Amino acid sequence: MFATMGALGLAPTAQAAPRETPFRAPSTSDFHLTGRAAARVVIVGGGIAGLTAAYELGKAGYDCTVLEARDRAGGRNFTVRGGDTTTDLYGNRQTARFADGHYMNAGPARIPQWMVTLDYCRELGVPIEVFTNVNADAYLYNESAGMTRPQRHRTAKADVYGYVSELLAKATDTGALDAELTADDRERLVEFLKDWGELGDTLTYEGGERRGYTTVPAAAGTPGVLLGDVPAASEVFASGVGRYFSFEFGFDQAMLMFQPVGGMDRIPAALTRAIGGARRIRTGAVVSKITDTGSGVSVTYTQGGRTRVVEADYCVAALPPNILAKVPHNLGSGVQSALEAITPSSAAKIGLEYRSRWWELDHRIYGGITETDQDVTHIWHPSYGFHGERGVLIGYYNYGADADSYARLTPKGREGRAVAAGVKIYGAKYRTELVSSFSHHWRQTPHLEAAWHSTPGGPDDPRYRPLNEPTGRVHFAGDWLSYTDAWQHGAFTSARRAVTALHTRVLAE
Amino acid sequence: MFATMGALGLAPTAQAAPRETPFRAPSTSDFHLTGRAAARVVIVGGGIAGLTAAYELGKAGYDCTVLEARDRAGGRNFTVRGGDTTTDLYGNRQTARFADGHYMNAGPARIPQWMVTLDYCRELGVPIEVFTNVNADAYLYNESAGMTRPQRHRTAKADVYGYVSELLAKATDTGALDAELTADDRERLVEFLKDWGELGDTLTYEGGERRGYTTVPAAAGTPGVLLGDVPAASEVFASGVGRYFSFEFGFDQAMLMFQPVGGMDRIPAALTRAIGGARRIRTGAVVSKITDTGSGVSVTYTQGGRTRVVEADYCVAALPPNILAKVPHNLGSGVQSALEAITPSSAAKIGLEYRSRWWELDHRIYGGITETDQDVTHIWHPSYGFHGERGVLIGYYNYGADADSYARLTPKGREGRAVAAGVKIYGAKYRTELVSSFSHHWRQTPHLEAAWHSTPGGPDDPRYRPLNEPTGRVHFAGDWLSYTDAWQHGAFTSARRAVTALHTRVLAE
Repeated sequence: MFATMGALGLAPTAQAAPRETPFRAPSTSDFHLTGRAAARVVIVGGGIAGLTAAYELGKAGYDCTVLEARDRAGGRNFTVRGGDTTTDLYGNRQTARFADGHYMNAGPARIPQWMVTLDYCRELGVPIEVFTNVNADAYLYNESAGMTRPQRHRTAKADVYGYVSELLAKATDTGALDAELTADDRERLVEFLKDWGELGDTLTYEGGERRGYTTVPAAAGTPGVLLGDVPAASEVFASGVGRYFSFEFGFDQAMLMFQPVGGMDRIPAALTRAIGGARRIRTGAVVSKITDTGSGVSVTYTQGGRTRVVEADYCVAALPPNILAKVPHNLGSGVQSALEAITPSSAAKIGLEYRSRWWELDHRIYGGITETDQDVTHIWHPSYGFHGERGVLIGYYNYGADADSYARLTPKGREGRAVAAGVKIYGAKYRTELVSSFSHHWRQTPHLEAAWHSTPGGPDDPRYRPLNEPTGRVHFAGDWLSYTDAWQHGAFTSARRAVTALHTRVLAE
Repeated sequence: MFATMGALGLAPTAQAAPRETPFRAPSTSDFHLTGRAAARVVIVGGGIAGLTAAYELGKAGYDCTVLEARDRAGGRNFTVRGGDTTTDLYGNRQTARFADGHYMNAGPARIPQWMVTLDYCRELGVPIEVFTNVNADAYLYNESAGMTRPQRHRTAKADVYGYVSELLAKATDTGALDAELTADDRERLVEFLKDWGELGDTLTYEGGERRGYTTVPAAAGTPGVLLGDVPAASEVFASGVGRYFSFEFGFDQAMLMFQPVGGMDRIPAALTRAIGGARRIRTGAVVSKITDTGSGVSVTYTQGGRTRVVEADYCVAALPPNILAKVPHNLGSGVQSALEAITPSSAAKIGLEYRSRWWELDHRIYGGITETDQDVTHIWHPSYGFHGERGVLIGYYNYGADADSYARLTPKGREGRAVAAGVKIYGAKYRTELVSSFSHHWRQTPHLEAAWHSTPGGPDDPRYRPLNEPTGRVHFAGDWLSYTDAWQHGAFTSARRAVTALHTRVLAE
């Protein structure tokens, strides 16, 4: 059987890293012998897609101008630090009070190993460290299933896997799977289940050290005290804790995950430097019109109350589709209806700054995510500053109606509601140790108005052809034109795609 | 049912962090009003237990002298850096050639969140970072099961969990578990299995994105290509990959794990500084006799060819038991037979330094452990220096006969054998990118001669009473007198126990 394993695909390509379509950056040498020259390109939107377009085109000497409506480049890659001020669409003005060195990544916050985002970190010299996406010691909390206290991931996993193991061993043993499995299969399966589910000799689950301890093993005299009694299978399944387990199997969420040291915005900061900073990027520049003139593109924008125009040979339109759809243009109704078919989604985070790292000291939780059925959804422990004096928890990372419902509160009201949920899980210090908070809601953020987008039919649906192919002299780019929407990888690879198309065209024209 | 969950122990103490027996460090103020004074203590062995004893006793002003046979304190906490030289018991002399900033932790290398080791890091100001103990993108390789290529953890997990899920759903569906489960249980179980095993609507496993991709999803036009065909259940169980899954559930191995930034020896270095350095610690001091004089303890040692004696009121004996058993003493046959009952174990590591981080570039593996059925056992990717120019892999971390078999080779022979195993898994760069190596075998290390110890009956077996209680004026300490043998936590907590007993006695005498 094993001789055929390669052919059967058990791991035919495991040695090769899975990669996106190879990308070759434009280069000045591409123009030798062609008689062509790098062109002027106006890039609308200074998020990751726009910055990447300018960065890659810049390698071949293109004369790029980036127009960014916000006061900073990076788009949804937004790291909030002390002193940062925002005003949302409801008029809530906030200034972050986080202490020096502390921050929250309001937008993207984690990077899987396979994403091209890491290649940009390497190329741009942005140091990375582990993002603590999963932690056996973080909590699960399902109030709706009757839980009155949180349970650690490790305990939940031990119990669910223990009973799954016991039940399957039992079914195998009673012959229920004889039609499915050979005798060898059954023997191997039961051998696996015994180890994997920590089953006793009678193939029953009775708990064990994987669940955890109330007093941990230590010196002689302290063998440790195992955590409580083991709940019955029925209770374990009813608690619904198992619903959180598959998260960590996801191709885009499995550990190990990474983050830039010091904040996710180290990436746009490095891109900005590499592009040429203010020489190339105009911030506070709100685009009001895009016109394809046939021989070029003319983009009108307002900046500091004055209306200006950039003339260029080409345009890369890298605004979110919901914003771009509101900008007058002459690119045709196909473009407009494609943009309008893509709908914005809500997501939000609140950073809760604490004067102590009580989650490390009292709960022995160093990073990772607590999963809840509360409207805060996820609570993130920070992946940096371990053992420091203070720290910033993400008190909610939620979506859709939950995010919108918090958005309608004042910042103080959001804090109060988030803290009330946290107190149920962590106890009083969740309130008493708090020193400041900062909440950010993407659907209510001017010039972005979305955390990510829903693209019916997927990005290659024929209705989006006018966006995936250049329309006249305008090329489109953004994570919303990728299969990894909401990830920087989508923005990077979409920008690379637009850059390749634009450069190929310039070389050929 | 849920009202009783607390009583049933579903998570009765989840909010409290599991802790060892509370420890109160000795303090100078303890002597106020007692008329007693801090005593002179000679500490035999400058590993973690010995250093901790000196550190904690020093807080109350005890006059401590630490005798350490090796040229450095720390014991098995040994970080190898460029320039470090060792000679093993076979006479193999090695000098590490690792580049600046690169190292291997030859001994302890990872710290679970719950261990007191982290408290010492915090107290001593030793910065920590994540140790990458588990990585979905690292490999599994079972040559004996016929695998000719490695498989990623994520792929193996998706397949095993997929089929476990399918089989259990099927057994549940056919009524095989009706005696075990209520209708509600069954419904909840199947609901869980569908999500957890990525089952299709027909409750069959057919693979999916969790297995991985050969081409990852990216921009429009690149939806991604899923990894190969899905092997049959029979093949999956026969491959034996599931045997590696329970490792990460262990109470002492579950992520998140941590390491000191810059090397594990930052801990003994910080302890050494806190104790008073060379003023307190005599290195190269080989103890040759321990005598309880009735009114004190006299310890004879040789240092630089000269024989010296330390006289003290008390002794903390913190050598490994196999070494201590060879030191003449007058502590009685109960002590001697207890020491001799504890047997030393072998373990070894080789650090392979590469000129490039090809595992990140070509394999997209950023940290974590590749598990094998080869005699190298575990291959560790480094948890530091991501995206750097070079890096040090642990090419083997093995035990027992495997470790001893490598030990009998020359350092060059060990390297060759380890590299040959690695090439099978990672390909040619495992050999061609290598620049240097350094191997370390604990059983063959002078003055230690063990990686850890086997303590028949456990540390509280009556035969060890002469070690767990003071014998005359000698107190014993070490991880081998704990329930976490081979972990620094055992050494720390055992030292705390000895310190508490010694201090209590001094206050009472």
